[in-house]
Amino acid sequence: MNIVVLGTIAFDDVVTDHGTVKNAPGGSAFYFSAAASLFTPVSLVGVVGDDFPQEEIQFLNKRGVNTDCLKIIKGGKTFKWGCEYETDMNKRSTTNLEINVFKDFNPVLNKQCRKSKYVFLGNINPELQLSVMEQIESPIFMGADTIECYIKEKPDVLKIVLKRVNLLMINDEEARLLTGEHNIISASRALLKLGPEYVIVKKGEHGSILATKDELFIVPAYPIIDVIDPTGAGDSFAGGTIGHIAKMDSIDSQTIKSAVVYGGIVASFTVEEFGLKRLKNLTMVDIEERLALFRSITLF
Amino acid sequence: MNIVVLGTIAFDDVVTDHGTVKNAPGGSAFYFSAAASLFTPVSLVGVVGDDFPQEEIQFLNKRGVNTDCLKIIKGGKTFKWGCEYETDMNKRSTTNLEINVFKDFNPVLNKQCRKSKYVFLGNINPELQLSVMEQIESPIFMGADTIECYIKEKPDVLKIVLKRVNLLMINDEEARLLTGEHNIISASRALLKLGPEYVIVKKGEHGSILATKDELFIVPAYPIIDVIDPTGAGDSFAGGTIGHIAKMDSIDSQTIKSAVVYGGIVASFTVEEFGLKRLKNLTMVDIEERLALFRSITLF
Repeated sequence: MNIVVLGTIAFDDVVTDHGTVKNAPGGSAFYFSAAASLFTPVSLVGVVGDDFPQEEIQFLNKRGVNTDCLKIIKGGKTFKWGCEYETDMNKRSTTNLEINVFKDFNPVLNKQCRKSKYVFLGNINPELQLSVMEQIESPIFMGADTIECYIKEKPDVLKIVLKRVNLLMINDEEARLLTGEHNIISASRALLKLGPEYVIVKKGEHGSILATKDELFIVPAYPIIDVIDPTGAGDSFAGGTIGHIAKMDSIDSQTIKSAVVYGGIVASFTVEEFGLKRLKNLTMVDIEERLALFRSITLF
Repeated sequence: MNIVVLGTIAFDDVVTDHGTVKNAPGGSAFYFSAAASLFTPVSLVGVVGDDFPQEEIQFLNKRGVNTDCLKIIKGGKTFKWGCEYETDMNKRSTTNLEINVFKDFNPVLNKQCRKSKYVFLGNINPELQLSVMEQIESPIFMGADTIECYIKEKPDVLKIVLKRVNLLMINDEEARLLTGEHNIISASRALLKLGPEYVIVKKGEHGSILATKDELFIVPAYPIIDVIDPTGAGDSFAGGTIGHIAKMDSIDSQTIKSAVVYGGIVASFTVEEFGLKRLKNLTMVDIEERLALFRSITLF
């Protein structure tokens, strides 16, 4: 089944211990789309300036991403983001943020997108998340992610979004910030009370936790020795997760657990190269092979 | 099969967000013995002053811990340790350390202990670890743990110990300190090069990793919402792990993987109360029940 994804499309400047990239195509919706499109068709909702390379959009189209709802602003400048990671890559600081074309962005979904059953609202202003959500006619499953700045600056709109989504995906620090609970299990239970039936807390190299009212599912991360660039790990995790759910077109406990495992495997590839480099040549065969290996090193 | 364990027996002063305890019986060998004795008989090698409560020794004896090699020094003062944990309980600072009777301790094993096949050298001066090691006549499996101060202050003796043990159990920060490798997989591989065939890196709430030359095994931690006191978690983890291996009397990949899982389950009980409170009334039924639950929340 088709997934509609809303999020940023960006130029990223990234510094890690392994090097530096400048103006690398990225953004939450781009990473999500590149990952999810390995599983199922995706429709991308977002905006770029005409400085965004045509070949990047062509890459998405070849992957099965419909870009009819990707607005290209003539003379506009694409969103820019800069970030520097510490040696402990769980720690990063934003070095640049230029909203540019997202400043006046008002997402308008076409007929096909409005009919979509699966929706993912990536890291972006929750007002935009709400706007897209309201345009979907009869969703089956909606997921959302968010980040620190919206938790701090737009808590009220964010809470409306959370009331309406089925799934919240969030990292451990954001889960603590949003709930005031230090313990991740307590935090995920507090998040469930905000609305979503499913909460996935991403813990980077320590894996992730899926919580529902009745169940808990804990999965470690696939071990990566050389993490080159963690940018997009969370978004491609979401892409693998929602991608698998939409592909199976089934919302049951077993499918969602498998989806979380797929998400982690996809993210483990993302971090092996800067930007989208590894994601771009990733195949389902690579994913299935690593999943089998992951099963063998976690089975007891 | 019987396990010989060497380590500290102590009075602990502990401060966590949940409260304070003073002069709580503890120490690496005490926690280890209390845990391992649920699986198999244990012989404890160590020293206390005659200020150490007789009922604590009686508790161990009732559990099946032989204390013939536990020296009681008349007029001596038992080892003391104080520690304060931050809200993030992975962070702690030592507030007190009085070696006392351990200052002149020279462990002498009796005939029965010398014949033991399974040995665990808990957190203690590596010179004492080496001395005990040399008294064991024909060991099958020897494990050791160590901590920051010995990595920094006694690296040369520690390296001799590591060359001779089969298993090193160590926490993530110590693994990084000992190898200079930030990544835990890289660190565990570097540790294997120091001698042990098996390396277990304990990551607290994030579980543990078992590495051998050919295999990797990754296991999350059983989720605990209210961690009251992490003291002894690592030592009781070791007790559960070595306890299971000695009980099965088998050194194969499957047994050691299961042992790591048992270790994690035991540690998950330890942290639920201050000191040895939970460990003291723990049973194999509790452990097996939680293990079944753990299996259900990690299976995919």
